[in-house]
This record gives sequence, C-alpha cells and structure tokens, in this order.
Amino acid sequence: MAKSRPKRGAADDALVVFTPSGRRGCFPQGTPLLRAARDLGVDIDSVCGGRGICGRCQVSLNTGVFAKFAITSEKSHLSPVGEVEKHFAETKGLLPGHRLSCAARLTGDVVIDVPAESQIHKQMVRKRADTRAMEIDPLIKLHYVEMSKPGMDDQSSDLNRLKLALAENWQLEDLDCDAGVLRSLSQAARSGETYGGDWKVTVAVREGKLITAVWPGFHDHVFGLAVDIGTTTVAVHLCHLATGEVVGSAGAMNPQIRFGEDVMSRLSYLQQNQDQAPQLTTAVREAVAKLAATAAFDAGIDLTDVIEATFVGNPVMHHLMLGIDPRQLGQAPFAMVTDESVTLMARDLKLSLNPGAHAYFLPCIAGFVGADTAGVILSESPHGSDELTLVIDVGTNAEIVLGDNHRLLACSSPTGPAFEGAQISCGQRAAAGAIERVRIDRDSLAPRFKVIGSDLWSDDPGFSEAIAGIGVTGICGSGIIEAVAEMFLAGIVDASGRIDGQGVNAKRTAHLVPEGRNFNYLLHVGPPELLVTQADIRAIQLAKAACYSGVRLLMDRMGVERVEHILLAGAFGAYIDTKYAMVIGMIPDCDLAKVGPAGNAAGTGARIALLSRQARAEIEALVKRVEKVETATAPEFQDYFVAAMDIPHASHRFPSLAGAVNLPE
Amino acid sequence: MAKSRPKRGAADDALVVFTPSGRRGCFPQGTPLLRAARDLGVDIDSVCGGRGICGRCQVSLNTGVFAKFAITSEKSHLSPVGEVEKHFAETKGLLPGHRLSCAARLTGDVVIDVPAESQIHKQMVRKRADTRAMEIDPLIKLHYVEMSKPGMDDQSSDLNRLKLALAENWQLEDLDCDAGVLRSLSQAARSGETYGGDWKVTVAVREGKLITAVWPGFHDHVFGLAVDIGTTTVAVHLCHLATGEVVGSAGAMNPQIRFGEDVMSRLSYLQQNQDQAPQLTTAVREAVAKLAATAAFDAGIDLTDVIEATFVGNPVMHHLMLGIDPRQLGQAPFAMVTDESVTLMARDLKLSLNPGAHAYFLPCIAGFVGADTAGVILSESPHGSDELTLVIDVGTNAEIVLGDNHRLLACSSPTGPAFEGAQISCGQRAAAGAIERVRIDRDSLAPRFKVIGSDLWSDDPGFSEAIAGIGVTGICGSGIIEAVAEMFLAGIVDASGRIDGQGVNAKRTAHLVPEGRNFNYLLHVGPPELLVTQADIRAIQLAKAACYSGVRLLMDRMGVERVEHILLAGAFGAYIDTKYAMVIGMIPDCDLAKVGPAGNAAGTGARIALLSRQARAEIEALVKRVEKVETATAPEFQDYFVAAMDIPHASHRFPSLAGAVNLPE
Repeated sequence: MAKSRPKRGAADDALVVFTPSGRRGCFPQGTPLLRAARDLGVDIDSVCGGRGICGRCQVSLNTGVFAKFAITSEKSHLSPVGEVEKHFAETKGLLPGHRLSCAARLTGDVVIDVPAESQIHKQMVRKRADTRAMEIDPLIKLHYVEMSKPGMDDQSSDLNRLKLALAENWQLEDLDCDAGVLRSLSQAARSGETYGGDWKVTVAVREGKLITAVWPGFHDHVFGLAVDIGTTTVAVHLCHLATGEVVGSAGAMNPQIRFGEDVMSRLSYLQQNQDQAPQLTTAVREAVAKLAATAAFDAGIDLTDVIEATFVGNPVMHHLMLGIDPRQLGQAPFAMVTDESVTLMARDLKLSLNPGAHAYFLPCIAGFVGADTAGVILSESPHGSDELTLVIDVGTNAEIVLGDNHRLLACSSPTGPAFEGAQISCGQRAAAGAIERVRIDRDSLAPRFKVIGSDLWSDDPGFSEAIAGIGVTGICGSGIIEAVAEMFLAGIVDASGRIDGQGVNAKRTAHLVPEGRNFNYLLHVGPPELLVTQADIRAIQLAKAACYSGVRLLMDRMGVERVEHILLAGAFGAYIDTKYAMVIGMIPDCDLAKVGPAGNAAGTGARIALLSRQARAEIEALVKRVEKVETATAPEFQDYFVAAMDIPHASHRFPSLAGAVNLPE
Repeated sequence: MAKSRPKRGAADDALVVFTPSGRRGCFPQGTPLLRAARDLGVDIDSVCGGRGICGRCQVSLNTGVFAKFAITSEKSHLSPVGEVEKHFAETKGLLPGHRLSCAARLTGDVVIDVPAESQIHKQMVRKRADTRAMEIDPLIKLHYVEMSKPGMDDQSSDLNRLKLALAENWQLEDLDCDAGVLRSLSQAARSGETYGGDWKVTVAVREGKLITAVWPGFHDHVFGLAVDIGTTTVAVHLCHLATGEVVGSAGAMNPQIRFGEDVMSRLSYLQQNQDQAPQLTTAVREAVAKLAATAAFDAGIDLTDVIEATFVGNPVMHHLMLGIDPRQLGQAPFAMVTDESVTLMARDLKLSLNPGAHAYFLPCIAGFVGADTAGVILSESPHGSDELTLVIDVGTNAEIVLGDNHRLLACSSPTGPAFEGAQISCGQRAAAGAIERVRIDRDSLAPRFKVIGSDLWSDDPGFSEAIAGIGVTGICGSGIIEAVAEMFLAGIVDASGRIDGQGVNAKRTAHLVPEGRNFNYLLHVGPPELLVTQADIRAIQLAKAACYSGVRLLMDRMGVERVEHILLAGAFGAYIDTKYAMVIGMIPDCDLAKVGPAGNAAGTGARIALLSRQARAEIEALVKRVEKVETATAPEFQDYFVAAMDIPHASHRFPSLAGAVNLPE
C-alpha cells in the first residue's frame, strides 16, 4: 500500500525516500541529499562535514517506478556529477552508480539507498544469532574542519578558532581539550599547501566532550587496541574504529611467567618478595607496548593513529597492568582494590599510542571473576538470550557464568592448573609436540594419539616423519582429559578413578605399568616415555570436581537441573573435545550440539567495548546485576565437590552422551 | 530587639544561637553542637567527620544573659568535657574555653561563637581594602573515613567500601577515582595499628567529584603550589590549602636565560633553531620541580602532600611550561595556541607532587597579555572597585589594564627592554651594585646615587666602605628613569630629550662629556665609568612613550581623561619612585598618593586561584569580558606615540606633580 505522500512546501518541491529506513520528505530543488537525510534523521556518516573529501556519505540511486512510494525515481532527478564528485572518483574511486550525498542535489523525486557502509551506526556482528544486535558506536568520532585564519583583526587563539569551527560545522559545544592536543594544534593547523598553513585539520572528539587528538588536513582513519592479558599469553587486536574491522593482531607469552606459571604462584612470589609488584607491572606493560607496535607495523599503521584501548584480564592481571599491587587477591577474603571499570590515559600505562589515547579496563565481578569474564559476558551475552547458558572459562580457576535474560550468576572455582597441563607428570602447555587427542582400543587397550603440529594419528603411516621436527613432548590439558575419559571408557579406570592394572586388563596389554601398589598407563613408549599416572588421574578428578561443583552450585542457586547451552571459553575451550569433558563429568549434561567453544571470548569482549559506548554502559550495569556466589564459604560446595570426585556413570546423569560414546557397564 | 524565639519541638528542647552568623534553632537535649550547626547551615569545618580527631570544629561558649536572643547561656548548658575532648586537649591542645563541637552536646540554651579558624570558608585577605572579600574555598577537600573491613561475607572491593563510607559520612556520591589512588589505596587502608590494617584513611576529593589522593589514617594537611614563571625569575609559594598560609617559598633565575635574556630573543632563538622548544620546556620544568622540592624541604613538607598547583606567566612562558612551541607568538598576528585556562595532571608537567595532583594555568587575555596579567587582575581586582584603576606590568612589553567594576580594557605595548636595564649603555638587571636612585644638584649638576645593597648615598660618609664588597656595577631600570628625570629637572636635558652640554651647563660641571656632536652625562667616575648617553635617553624616551601611548589608547577607548589609581606591578614597580615615572611622562597624571607598587601581583593571583574555586570562575569569566585593544593596528597609537616622545612640560599635563618636584621652566 502506498504511504501517504508528504506535503510539498512548494509545487516543484522534490520528494526523496531513503531506503532501507523508509524515511521520506519533500525538499526544495537543489537541496543536497545529505542535508535532506539529516533533516529526516537518516543515519549517514560524514567525517569531512559535506565537503566531498571523505566519501563516507556515499549513496546509490534506485531508478524506476515505485508504486509503494507513489513516485518515479530517475537518474535525471539528481544534479549531474560535478567537479567535487569527479575529483573524488578520480582520486579515491566511487563505485558505479554511487553518488556523494553531500554533492548530489535533488532536482526531482528519487528513491535513495543508503548502504550499510555509509551508516554511522553499523551493526556489529555478535557471534550468537539469538542475541540482540549491537551497533558500532565508538567513543571517538573524527571531525574535519576548516578553521578561520588568525589576523591582526582576529588574534583569537588557535583553540578558540578550532572550537568555533567545531561548533559551526558539527554543533559541538563546550568541548574540553586535552593538553597534548595543544602541543600539536599549532603545527597541524599551519601545515599544508600554502605558507602559514591551510588551517584545515581533523580532530578526534571523545564522547562528544573532549578533543583528544588533532591531525593536519583531512584524516580518515583511527584505530583502537583491544588487549587481552592472560596469565599465560597476551594478545592485542587493532581495530578500525569506524568499521570494526580487525586490521592487525599480535600475541606473545606473558613475560610474567618467569615469576610463576600461574596466578597463585605469582601472588606467592609477591608475598615472598615485597615491593616486586612494579617489576611484574613493567614486564606486562612492556609486552603490551611491544605487541601494539608489532601489530601496528604489520598493518602499516602509525601508532599515533591508535586513539583508544580496552583491556580485559583476570583480577591479578588487571591489577598488575594498572600498577596495583595485587597481593591481597592471594589471601582471604580475596577483595579486589577496585572492581569498577577504570579509564585512564594510555600514556599513564607507558603505552605510546596517540598522546591523547585513553585506556578502558572492563569492570570486574568479584575476587577471582575478573574483567576477562566481563568480556566473556559481553561477547557471549548469556543475558541476551532466553536459553539458560553456562559459560566456563577454564584456567587455574574456572570462572563460571550461568544465566539468561532474567538472571546472571557467577562464581570462581579453584580447579588448580591440571587443565592447563601443570601438576600432570608429563603435562605441558598446549604447544607443538603436546598430545592433544587420545584414543584407546577397547580390546587391546593400546593407545593412539595426535600431537599439536600434525594432523596424523600416531598409528597413521608417515606419522614419525610428520613429527620429525616436533617430537612428542608431553600432554596438554585437552590431551589429559581425553586420556582419562578414554581410559574410563575402555575400562582401565573405574568410576572411583583407580587404574585397574590387574585381572583381565593385565592380560590384554603391556601398557599398564605397576608403580608400588598402583598402576600407570603407558601412553607413549618414548623417548620421552609418557605415562598417565594414578596421581595424574587424581589431579584431573580434583580439577573436574571443582569445576563441576562450581557449576552445580550455580545451578542450585538458580534452581535448575539442566542448562540449555554450554560455552567453553579460551584456549582450553578451543582444543577440548566437549564430549570427553562430559564423559569425565567436568560439565553437566547438555545436548552435545549445544556445547561448544566460545573462542577467545574475553578478547572479543574487549573488541566490543572498543567499538561501542553502549556496550560499556551495558557491561558496567550488568556486572552490578551479576549475583556473585562464593564457593569457598557455600556450605553445600564441599558436598558437591566430594560427590563430583567420581567419574560418573554417565548413562544416568548424562543422557546426552547416549549415542556419542559407549559407556562402560 | 529580641528576635522571635524559634518554636521548641518539645518542652525541654534547647535553643542554640551561633554567632557571628546569628543562626538559631531548637534541638533535643543531647544534640551535638556540630549537628545543630549543620542543620542550621552554620559554616563549621571538619576533616574527621565528627570523630574528635581533627579539631577543626572548635567553638567557644558565650555565657551570660543575652537579652537580644532572649536566652541565658551557661556553662552547665553543655555536656561536661568527656573522654574525646580530654584526649584531644592532651594530645593536640585545646584553647581555654574552647570545645569540640562534634563532642559537646546541648543540655540547655547556649550562645556559641564560631571562630574564624573553624569556618570552612575563611575570608581571604586581598590587599586592597576597597574590593570585595574572597573566601578560601580550595578545590581540594580532605575527608577522613573509617571503612568497613572486607570479609568472606563482604568481598566487595576496597574502592567500593571507600565510596560507601564517603557516601555515608560525607554525602559524597558518584565519585570518580584517579587511577593513581588505586595504587595506594590497598596499602593505606591496610596500614595502622592492627595486623591487616585499621581501615581508616583520609582522602582528598577534588571539586566534590574526583578522589585524587589517599593517606593512611587521619591526615590533616595538604598544600598547594603557586608558580609564577617570569622571563627572568621563577618563584614558587607553598600554601596550606585550608588556611591559605604561605608555608614556604623559593625563587631562582629562569634557566631559559641562556637561550635569550628576554622573551623576544628566546622566540628568535627558536625561530633559528627549529625543534628546540622542548629544550626550553625541560629547562623551566626542571627549575619549577627543583624550587618545589626546595620550598617543601625548607618547610618540612613532604611533596606528596602537595595536591594542587597553579601557574601564571606571560604567554611565551605559559606555552613553554605547557610544552607548546610558542614560535607563533613571535610573528604577527601573535595568536596564542590557547588563551583558556588549562587543567592537567601535574605529573604531565614532570612535576613530582602527589601523583594525583592537578595543575591549573590561569587563562590568558591576548597575544602578549598573559596569565600573569590575569593573576594581576585577580590580585589587584580593578574590576572590584568604583575607582578607575590603571595597572601596568612593565617588562619587555608593558601589559596594561585599565578599568573599574563596569569595564576592563587591556593592551600590550612594546616598551622594549630599556626599563629592565637592557639596551642601556651601562644598564644591568636590578641586582647588588646597580644604581637604583639618582639625585642631581640643581646648581653644580653633580650627581649622587644609591646602589642596591646599601642604604647610603654616594656622597654619604662611609659609602665606599659600605659598598666595598659590592661595587658600583651599572644602572638598573629604576636608576635610569631617575637619572633621566633628574637630568630633565636639573635642566641638563630639554623637553625634546637632547642633552645640552653647551652654554651655561658646560660652565657649571665637568660631568657633561662630549661624544661627536652629542654629550653624555658622567654618573660615576668609576671604575667602571658609568655614563648616561644621549642614546640611553632616546631608548628611555621610546620606552616611556610606548608605555604612555598604550595607557593613552586605553583611556581614549574608555573615554576618560584621568585615572584615579595607578598600580605598578612586578619588580620594576617595587623599585621605581613613582614620582619620577610621572616626571618623564611614563604614566598619566594621578594623585601621587594613589600611585603605588602592586608587588608580586601575578604571583599573588596564582595563590588566590590556588585557594578559591570562586576565584578561578571569576578570572575565567573576567578574561572574556576584558576588551583587548591592539596597539599595533590602532591608527591613533602612532600619533600618541610620537606625541609622547617629548618629556612633558609637567606643569601642564601633570598637576599632581606640583609640590613634589620643581619643574623646569
């Protein structure tokens, strides 16, 4: 049905309809499309303020008879392509059929399509389709202006004239100005073609309030840095702030590892070596600075074009990056110094980005549930879904979030480092040469495995050649879980976790090796000889029981017996075969199709916070709503823990496993 | 006449009257005086929040029958001195008759005097009695709080618990927190008597919005640093932020002098040596840092107790301290990069005060009328007076302000450095050995003089001995002005400025020494021989003409023929005999009793801005109201300048001089 036609002010006024918004209105002939769009509240981007420089405002003309709009749209209903558009097309290129909306003027009725690229508030792709979309709306906006020149009749300051231009062209009033901008404003304004400068600059304005940076002339690209500080690795992503595109990434080991492999050992290092926190701070800051430089270099970006940074990390990493001594996190009651979001100048973190760059740390939730978990929530948005979702970030502690759009619970459970391959006799971090997949023949009880760095199984032809440069060096977290699960499924390990090396098993295989009164299982003859020991099984039992009982505690508090969706975050989640995690009873029953990795969810959360003001407000409000459940003081936690030590008779408690594995009697 | 008695809520309610405010009200017996005062809006200070620790809330009881309040006030109408007050009196001392208003409770009707020291908003002493008073109201307020301890039942962050305590005890809500505070909060809260800390801290809150610093326990003293960056000297004053008392000062030469004696020569150094501005910035910042350390050390103050700094300086000094390349100030149109007030972190000026200390630069007015002039206006407040006041800050440029409470005009006039003793053949800066006073015998035309460092005239007995360690080294600015004026008054120099060494003069003295077709005047036989040359007279004529014509231009624009008050700021103003300044026609006619030095008015302005929020708002609003008059482009300026070259026939234009000097025919 045709909509009612807007009233024309004059007989020869032109009607314009913008798609996909459908907004429409009548304007005098000669009105630039961009002005019409602005009047109608149609979202079209512009950095240059309608001067035909930036090309952000491109639109395309739909020609034909549009019955539903009751108009005929023709090419001749727009002004011919003029000098400005020709110049732009020649120097920067204009897609066929595209016009600059600041230059094209109405001469008749038209239907104009605004492509997604030309919208200020582009949709941000969240990974889960069932959560509401989020718009790209970075805190930093670029504004190109042409300042008036000073003269004996106008001796007002450079800043005055800049502010005047920003007020006139962009309706930005009452702006503050970072002192760093004052240091570069004079030169930026006075550079350019003519002696004395051409007085054209581009400024970055933060939250519509603060001038944070200035560049000479027209400047189109600014970037943000999303930083994910893990205990083991540090990763950075450089994102284009207007498009959200990741233009560069870099990662490295966290150099703090020399002070301790995991968070607890670093805290105990600090307990024993008073006043050494600044050393750990310097180490991680230098690593971040180096990664930022590497990512920028690889992407061909100048670090001074990086104008905003966001950080996620567990509470200890968070505190150390900020320069806060985290020792109190190692002792009951594990209170953080702050759990609010923190904004400061990037330069105060010794980070050489643009001098006016700000750094934003996502808020934390509780003692061991940090900004990394906030990032996970932002990325996986359990709060945005009807489905009851369980998100587990496995590390030395498992950070666990359970919830839906009604309620969110979180806890931290002390799994210990077994899942990361530590405290396992042949354990190692997930790196080339580490066993990551294990299968055990149900009859011969002989193992076969895969190592990181090769796609072949150990009994495939050519395996030895394939791993010649790598070797078989140890077992990583996902490998040990598969080993334990397969040992259970093959009947080598019983539900109590004991390796049964006698009776029928002993007759079938030479892989069961006695040690005192116990047996170990020989996974790899070597060299090096790799065993799964009875002690390793116990360590995994403790770890998985801690994880499961944390989950159980949250389910209990939520009053549910079942979750609908499970997401395993981080590297561990990426490598593990979720089926085996369920076999050993690390996670509760759930449709296996709905159990999956969350990938680098914390880092994704940092990226989202980089690109969206709304996301920051959302996570800041959310963390206050998250109900923190304390595992250490919950009376039922110990009971759950003890009950969860056994490897479960999966057929009873894990109906979803039916068909996926053959469970032992 | 007795005021009507406030209604008592209950029959035995007590009536309290606070003086000097006269505020009064009825309260239940047992109400602490401080609470009654707060309820009535009586201004009583407190840092500890009523815990009997700070002693800021002391009051005294007035006893007797107060007919005008219709009450009888007796000692027994207050609760007896209890433990808290006894402890305070023993440890910190309590004046006789004084009570802690937080501890003393009403038991009957009383009249309570609130001494000035106990008011938050103490009056600030301005030098001129005729201007309105200004209250001490620093941006930084101290607040002592006792935080809750964290426990397994309250794992909330330290910052959360701090904010809670600030909200409960001080009604401070929605506070931001400087990241630096996060670094010291944990330790501050956990220090103290007991293991694990006593959780008592004092925080500094800036403008009721930002937590900028934290100290363990009760902390009573914070200081501010007022910095006056002159072209020649840099001076700092440390002030107690609650009382305004100057507790320490230090001054030194501006080390930038090695790049040029005056502002113009430094600018020309920078023109010739591109990219050297950072060197000048580093030099002055190091000087300020060193002076701050010296002043703090002398006063026995820890620099971490210095929490705010203010800066004044001419535009070039202002820009260089901020790290802004000031070259554009050396070329028409002399536009500043910014003339607004600038606030930044002191650490961003490489100034090691408290890590959360802020630095505030007073606003500037125009190209050569800087933050120093803003300081002068704040200190001398011509805008606060009915009298039309002229303030002149003499340097390489004379910065001139003319106005009253209706209107303010300002300009800068290029006097050149003659008044500072430069470009004078025997000129030197005002330092020991420099001639500062000159008298010439009207008959013999023989000179006598005083030098800085001795109170004796050169013809007094014992003069040679008195200056044995000093010598007579040159002539400073005030000396050359007196010399020229005395030469005029003695008939040696005519109104056109020509030294008449012939005819009757030549017969009377040997002090007139020919040089080519001109004569010089021998002021000191030497060594070194000190002459006032014909060229010196010309230099002084040019300088005084520039000053006078700037003043005349402002008077012209103001539409007045006379000013009522003249203040000469800075070192020059302190040394000069104002009578002689009038004789040579440097300043306009004015009652000599109303012409005086303004002292270090710029530095005083910096101190006022340190102590008063209101003063900052006032000067920021004022500079926008100041009408800038540009001497370089004003068509009449050149005419005034030419007309002002002659030494005036004072009897006509300077009636105020009658009786002060005998003017030549």
